[in-house]
Order: sequence, then structure tokens, then C-alpha cells
Amino acid sequence: MWSVVAPLPLASSRSRRPGASATVRRNYHGLDLAYFDRLRALSTQRGTLLCVGLDPDPERIEGGAAGALRHCQEVVRQTEEHVCCFKPNSAFWEQYGPDGWSALMELRDAAPNTPFLFDAKRGDMGNTMRTYARAVFETLAMDAATVHAYMGTDSLREFTAFEDRGVYIVCRSSNPGATDLQHLVAQGMPLYQQVAALAAKVNEHRNVGLVVGATAPAEVAEVRRASDLPFLLPGVGAQGGDVEAAARAAWNGDPASCLVSSSRSVLYASSPAREAASLKAQINAATGVRA
Amino acid sequence: MWSVVAPLPLASSRSRRPGASATVRRNYHGLDLAYFDRLRALSTQRGTLLCVGLDPDPERIEGGAAGALRHCQEVVRQTEEHVCCFKPNSAFWEQYGPDGWSALMELRDAAPNTPFLFDAKRGDMGNTMRTYARAVFETLAMDAATVHAYMGTDSLREFTAFEDRGVYIVCRSSNPGATDLQHLVAQGMPLYQQVAALAAKVNEHRNVGLVVGATAPAEVAEVRRASDLPFLLPGVGAQGGDVEAAARAAWNGDPASCLVSSSRSVLYASSPAREAASLKAQINAATGVRA
Repeated sequence: MWSVVAPLPLASSRSRRPGASATVRRNYHGLDLAYFDRLRALSTQRGTLLCVGLDPDPERIEGGAAGALRHCQEVVRQTEEHVCCFKPNSAFWEQYGPDGWSALMELRDAAPNTPFLFDAKRGDMGNTMRTYARAVFETLAMDAATVHAYMGTDSLREFTAFEDRGVYIVCRSSNPGATDLQHLVAQGMPLYQQVAALAAKVNEHRNVGLVVGATAPAEVAEVRRASDLPFLLPGVGAQGGDVEAAARAAWNGDPASCLVSSSRSVLYASSPAREAASLKAQINAATGVRA
Repeated sequence: MWSVVAPLPLASSRSRRPGASATVRRNYHGLDLAYFDRLRALSTQRGTLLCVGLDPDPERIEGGAAGALRHCQEVVRQTEEHVCCFKPNSAFWEQYGPDGWSALMELRDAAPNTPFLFDAKRGDMGNTMRTYARAVFETLAMDAATVHAYMGTDSLREFTAFEDRGVYIVCRSSNPGATDLQHLVAQGMPLYQQVAALAAKVNEHRNVGLVVGATAPAEVAEVRRASDLPFLLPGVGAQGGDVEAAARAAWNGDPASCLVSSSRSVLYASSPAREAASLKAQINAATGVRA
């Protein structure tokens, strides 16, 4: 266990989104803590910064949506003690059609003690973004989500208005094409730093984080110098991200500062439990945390 | 009827995405024409540039997903002769959970003769973006979709690889927050112009368009000066976009150049048919087209 440096402000968790309909919400397991406080508490309790992505591939898992659900339920069962978060990506459930959505809802209910971060990268305007937020936080009862910042602050605030949920804004992605737009220099800094600045602006409820790819440790370090927000670091494993360099660059002592996500390398390991335990240890060693 | 200025290249429609599994595709009504060619032909045949958004709101339509489906089926029935495209927005169907996805698939099958543009604004990397493309173009059998460019060319090409479908890239959105990032100047031009340039780069299969909000006619004109790509113009009606100024600025003689979309003003009109006919006439008058 490490020592928790960030306080756990319980008060904010009571003030949910004004006007949110209680009748539409269902099966939400958030209990009394806001997302980032739950993440900090669970990360500390389980001694891990690992997040496992739940992205079923029909070319590797037989049996359609039902097969995907069974496979992911087993991965959840094997890895839950080694993670502080699960991250289903919307695309992989959407590909199964309506059955995929049903399976995802069942999967979410199978692990009520661990937050679910819905990697959906939604980004739209006004009433549409509000509807996405309801779909993610009410219909699917997710604890956190990823979003795009391109539409600006009014768009982002439709998600951050759900004060007890977490909102990770895509800042510097983990793919090669990240440099096409994200590295353009505007007003003296690369676009991804402009996005980080915008994220700080919409962090009124202290529920905002940044997505920064583990494949680019130099940019992780650069964004960390400019921002204290919690980071989600995808790109570990199949994408070849340097987990140790990225984790070292992201970690700032806050147990929520460095959520490292791996999907395929755990999901299709001969032993997901062993792979998750090994990743957990690797990340803890890099950040200097003793589990 | 106006005279069609753009050629209708039939050849490209045969070469679909390499490796796309024929068994997963279902109910696709594209027949032998690529999306933009169908749009041009239908727009010419019906004498209209109007697109109607199918975005059901549970606070205005009773009966859950089934009620939404019935309402939208009736709107489709009343307005189909006045439009060349229908545009369901993903958020509004996602909010109903699995039933919403079933309803959307049923709705799509109810109007096989008109292209469906799925307004989903997806944007992710590599294999995830490929999975989104399959979900949209195969599982949902949509003819076109909107996407975000933030992740760069490798991300966008996962969608444009479906050569017979249309891909509209969000360029300049219709909401107030559009100025937060999109108007940042990078390398001598606003970010939305950088996005337009990136869109031209991934237009190898001539299946790329741009989303440019009707609320900003000056920016529509500016992007049109820089780009010959087809435009989708949302923001008409409830959002208060200046339909005439925006349509005049977008129109360049190509029947696909100026697809004007309205959702709420038609969806909740006392007579959707009359509202659609009126919008159609207004757009045609602005562009100088005689229906």
C-alpha cells in the first residue's frame, strides 16, 4: 500500500447533476463516492494502477455477443483483484448490434465493486451531447467516460455536469496519426496542450481527466508538467507503449494520476490473471509504489 | 430539376473495402451506386437538398423506443419525397439502450430508397476505428457517417476504406463552443481549415465530405473557397442557423455540395410534410435551383 496524498472530499459526491432524473438511472453502483474518489480509494486498497480494457473481437471469440460476454466475465473474474478500473470500448460492443448493448449492461452488473470507464470518445453539441451523457451515465450506468474536446466547452460541460462521474478528455492519442492535428502549434503550444488547458477550464467539479497515450512518454511528461489532472494511459501491450516510461512520466503521487490501460494483451492472454498481475507489478515498480 | 454538373462515376462503386466480410453485411440498400453518387442522383430526381434528422426525444415522444420508432416512421413517410437523405443521430437511439438499436435498424429498413447518414461523430484509433466502421456500415447498414478527425489520417482511413459509403468529417460545428478549439490559428489558418485540408488528403476514394454548421455562414463560405468537398450543413431550425446564407455559401453546382439538415423543426412540426416542403423550397430558392 502507498500513502494516499490526495484528500477524499466526500461532500461533492452528494451533489449530482441538477435535474437528472432519478427514475431513468438504473443499476448504478457508484454508492456515495464520486468517480475519482472511488478510483483513488480502490487503487490504494488493491495496490494497483492497472485498468483492463474489455474489447471483445469476434474473430478471436466465438459465439457472438453471448460469447463476448462470457469471455469478458471470465476476464473480469480473473483480473478484478489486480485492477482499479475496467474499460469497455463502445465500438467492440456496438459491432454486435442490440445484443452487444445487452451484453455490455450485463457485464457491467457483474462487477459492481469496480468502476467502469466507458471508452466511447463521444463529442457532439448541446442537446445531443446531453443525450450521450444520459445514455452513458444513466442507461448504461457507467462511472466514467472518454470524450472529444473538438466541440468546445459547452459540449464538454454536458458530461462534466454529472458531478459524481469521471470525464477523460482525449488529449494526445496513442496512434501514429496523433501527430497530424494534435501536434499542430497554435498560440505557441501544440494542440494537445490547448486541449489540456481547455480540460482544466471545465474541471469545476474536479471530475475531469486526460487521455494521453503510453506510446508517447515524452508527450506524457510534457503534459504532466502543464497539468495536475488524472491521466488515463492507453496503448500498453499490443500497441507497444513503453509502460514504464509512460507511468513514471504520468505519476505525481495522486493514486488517480496514472491509470494504465491494457486491452488485448490481457484479454487474449493464456492466463489473464497472470498477465494482469505482471502488468500491475511492472507499473508499481516504475512509479516507485510498493504494493 | 436542375442540371447535374458532376459526373456519376459508376466504376468506383464495385470496389468495396478489401477484406470486408460479406457474411456480416446485412440489409444494405446501397445497390450499385456509391453514397455520393446516390445522393446526387436522388437530389436531382427529387429536386431537393434537404436532409431530415431523426433524433427522438423521450420527453416529447411517449412509449420508449417503440414510440420513437413509430414517430420517426411517420416522419419518414411524410417527408421522404422532400428529402434526399435521412440523418439519425446515434445519441438519441443509444439513450433507449438495446431497444433503441433494434428500433434504429427497423427504421433504416423502412426507407430503403433513401440513404441514411448516421450522425455518430466517431473518432478512435486503428483496430477500434475499424470496429466502429463495421458497426456503422455492416451491423447498422448505414450509407454514410460523420466522424472526428482529431486522431488523424490513419483513423479516418478506417472509415474511408469503405469505398461505397460516405464519410463526413466534422470541420466547423454549429454550436457556440466551436470557437474554443476550431478557431485556433495553426500554421496560418484556423484549425477547421486544417481539418478541411486533412479531409482532402484522405479523399482517395472520393467518398469524403465536411460538416460545416449553418449557424456560421461566413465560415461556410471560407471553407468553400478552400474546398470542393460535399458539405453537410446542420444547425437549421431549432439551432437558428441562417439556412439561406449558409446554403448559398455552400452550393457550388454539385448536387451533393450542399446537404442541409434539420431535425427538431421537422420532427416536432404539426405537419412534418409541410415543414419539409417549406424548407426544401427555401433552400432551392437560396441556391437558385428550380425544382
